[in-house]
Amino acid sequence: MSYDLIIENGILLTADNRQSIHPKGLLCIRDGVIVYAGPRDQAPEPLNAKERVDARGGIIMPGLVNAHTHITMSLFRGLADDLPLEEWLTRHMFPAEAAHVNPETARTGALLSCAEMLLSGTTCFCDGYFCEDAVAEAVAKTGMRAILGHGIIDYPAPGVPDPKDNVKAATDYARKWMGKSGLITPSLFCHSAYTCSPASIRQAKKEADNLEILFQIHAAETQFEHSQSMKEHGLSPIQYLDSLGVLDRNTLVVHGVWVDSQDIEIIAKRGSAVSVTTHSEMKLASGVAPIPAYLNAGVRVGLGTDGPASKNNHDMFREMSLTAKIHKALSLDPTELDASTAIALASRMAAEAIGLGAITGSLEPGKKADLIILDTNAPNMTPLYHPESAVVYAASTDNVRQVFVEGKCLVRDGRLTSMDMDKILAQAKILEQSIGGKGA
Amino acid sequence: MSYDLIIENGILLTADNRQSIHPKGLLCIRDGVIVYAGPRDQAPEPLNAKERVDARGGIIMPGLVNAHTHITMSLFRGLADDLPLEEWLTRHMFPAEAAHVNPETARTGALLSCAEMLLSGTTCFCDGYFCEDAVAEAVAKTGMRAILGHGIIDYPAPGVPDPKDNVKAATDYARKWMGKSGLITPSLFCHSAYTCSPASIRQAKKEADNLEILFQIHAAETQFEHSQSMKEHGLSPIQYLDSLGVLDRNTLVVHGVWVDSQDIEIIAKRGSAVSVTTHSEMKLASGVAPIPAYLNAGVRVGLGTDGPASKNNHDMFREMSLTAKIHKALSLDPTELDASTAIALASRMAAEAIGLGAITGSLEPGKKADLIILDTNAPNMTPLYHPESAVVYAASTDNVRQVFVEGKCLVRDGRLTSMDMDKILAQAKILEQSIGGKGA
Repeated sequence: MSYDLIIENGILLTADNRQSIHPKGLLCIRDGVIVYAGPRDQAPEPLNAKERVDARGGIIMPGLVNAHTHITMSLFRGLADDLPLEEWLTRHMFPAEAAHVNPETARTGALLSCAEMLLSGTTCFCDGYFCEDAVAEAVAKTGMRAILGHGIIDYPAPGVPDPKDNVKAATDYARKWMGKSGLITPSLFCHSAYTCSPASIRQAKKEADNLEILFQIHAAETQFEHSQSMKEHGLSPIQYLDSLGVLDRNTLVVHGVWVDSQDIEIIAKRGSAVSVTTHSEMKLASGVAPIPAYLNAGVRVGLGTDGPASKNNHDMFREMSLTAKIHKALSLDPTELDASTAIALASRMAAEAIGLGAITGSLEPGKKADLIILDTNAPNMTPLYHPESAVVYAASTDNVRQVFVEGKCLVRDGRLTSMDMDKILAQAKILEQSIGGKGA
Repeated sequence: MSYDLIIENGILLTADNRQSIHPKGLLCIRDGVIVYAGPRDQAPEPLNAKERVDARGGIIMPGLVNAHTHITMSLFRGLADDLPLEEWLTRHMFPAEAAHVNPETARTGALLSCAEMLLSGTTCFCDGYFCEDAVAEAVAKTGMRAILGHGIIDYPAPGVPDPKDNVKAATDYARKWMGKSGLITPSLFCHSAYTCSPASIRQAKKEADNLEILFQIHAAETQFEHSQSMKEHGLSPIQYLDSLGVLDRNTLVVHGVWVDSQDIEIIAKRGSAVSVTTHSEMKLASGVAPIPAYLNAGVRVGLGTDGPASKNNHDMFREMSLTAKIHKALSLDPTELDASTAIALASRMAAEAIGLGAITGSLEPGKKADLIILDTNAPNMTPLYHPESAVVYAASTDNVRQVFVEGKCLVRDGRLTSMDMDKILAQAKILEQSIGGKGA
């Protein structure tokens, strides 16, 4: 057999549904697809390849899948923190978005986030924002895999000045990107039930169903939202979405923090998925989403970082680590949400949650070769008794050395190969000046 | 004026008690001591120096102070995770310690931790463990600043086979290291009230007082410990320590998770300090220490990482970030524990908590030049509107480029200058083989 690429001499952490680990693992890749993933000594000989990558004893694992982002919002990273949600949104985020988001700035923000995500080991993400056509154009050039959802909100928004065009604008975008790129999948993203009318939500979901694409919506994020929903509809946010008939297997509920067992049962029954952004939800004081309960109910769950204006970075290693720890701390049970589960939530299960489970999220024959190699020859990764524990509890973004998407190397020895980082940083710094802040 | 070292062209984050920030800051250093720390344009001319460091627009801030570690336990990093505390301790940690901790291995574990701490921006730490004489010898050579506490426990321990020698062994060690090194300060560390008799605790505290050194003790870490203390003594762990007369300004209470308002009042009245290890306490499912309540009561608090067998790394950036977020999430108040406070807890306040507040922890004239420079020319640090927000919510250990202790450069461009990292990693990997694990 002859391959395009062989990756060898590493600990292979497959993140398959048995979370198989091969201490002496081997990956064989042809046409961007994994042909073999397993122990080196069981690989079918001969092992000829155009290119061989020596993992040097490091950990070979799936590229991380970020199940919820607003990548353009990197422009507003750290613009306003430690503030009440209302003040943060209405006095900082909304004015900044109205004044500064356009296709040109969206492109810069998107590239800035892609650079950060790739360098920190993320190969695939699920986004939602405005000016998403410009975002898609930018992302397509980076070589990353993404689901890019066009925002829908019943207020004037960047690129959609008149809200009555909101579903049409989003659908036009989605149509344009259907099948246009093997790496980019369009989606529709209704902001929330408190910013979109029932008609907008129903219409958006109908269009998403017509196109057979993912429908995303923020829901059950805060206590305030929950109590407002109870007051207005007599229904929890999840019950309300269910009453609109928009919960099914192609719907991704974003956040899902304020849910009770009945809500979880509804989500499970409808087959919807949930993306959880642990850091962001804690930082905005929304609370903690009950991931163990979702998993017990069989709900597909993926971790995400949220927009960099609320979490401030795209570090998925921290999402794994904190997600494992917060549920131990809250339950006072140190066996809750173990390292293996945390990895799955940021790889295979995240891919399944966003509808890309057949394509990415684990290292198995037939899936695309989206993977990363972690350097273990570093103090924080030494000694290394259990690779999953090392990835979740000890590793940091420093340890990411190589990143591949569809077998193409996008980060080599910790440096981007497909992007001009200096140029992106320079463009972002120019925007920093115009967006301004009260700090340095 | 002529200086040994001038650091220029950076944002100076002093962490003084007003948390002063100078966007165009300058640091002037002579004989390892800060002579000037302030705006460049107010510095006394002329500015001659033997060496000038260009911070290139980065953030110049105090070296981070880790207020609680067991650095030798890096040998057991990730050996056993996601387990019930009892099983973790009795089936993994205690046997591993008994079999593998000796002066030689302690040296390797200590150096491994020092390498990790320096590379991640920590310049000073407060430790407690056994074979601490060997640890002190190793640490002294790295150029780091440390308080090194010899462990005291009423069981056979590494280097102290007979518990009846425990206080004497620790005191002999402390005497040996009194004034021996400008960077190393000895301390006595009673493991806990459930592993040390009242006589051991009182005697150890008396010896610490004689030597005028810090007395450390784990207390109020778990719910189990609290209920046992109530059962056995009719007192909470803090009340019990107070009944022994060992709480005063030279006592550091480690963890302090299971405390009520009365306990906090006792700690405040006695002037004792508390070190909190947020990640470790969450991972071991101990709970969350009420830092805001401690601060309101005027208690000195510092953040720490705990031993790498329970937290798994020494990343103080994550401690700042998580500490800020967990208290927002628990209080549902996003203004709780802001970025500025989080930085203080990992620098000036941590130094004050461990008794080194006059020497390190902030960049002010008269203090030692213990500092780090963060690279801000990185995607996760761009844009940069508020330096404190960037440090706490966006920065990671990748961003640490230069580290100085007493004006001496210990990390230059992300590489250790005082240690042979390859040699340390090789030694640790040999120990990994003998300690073994059930994983890779």
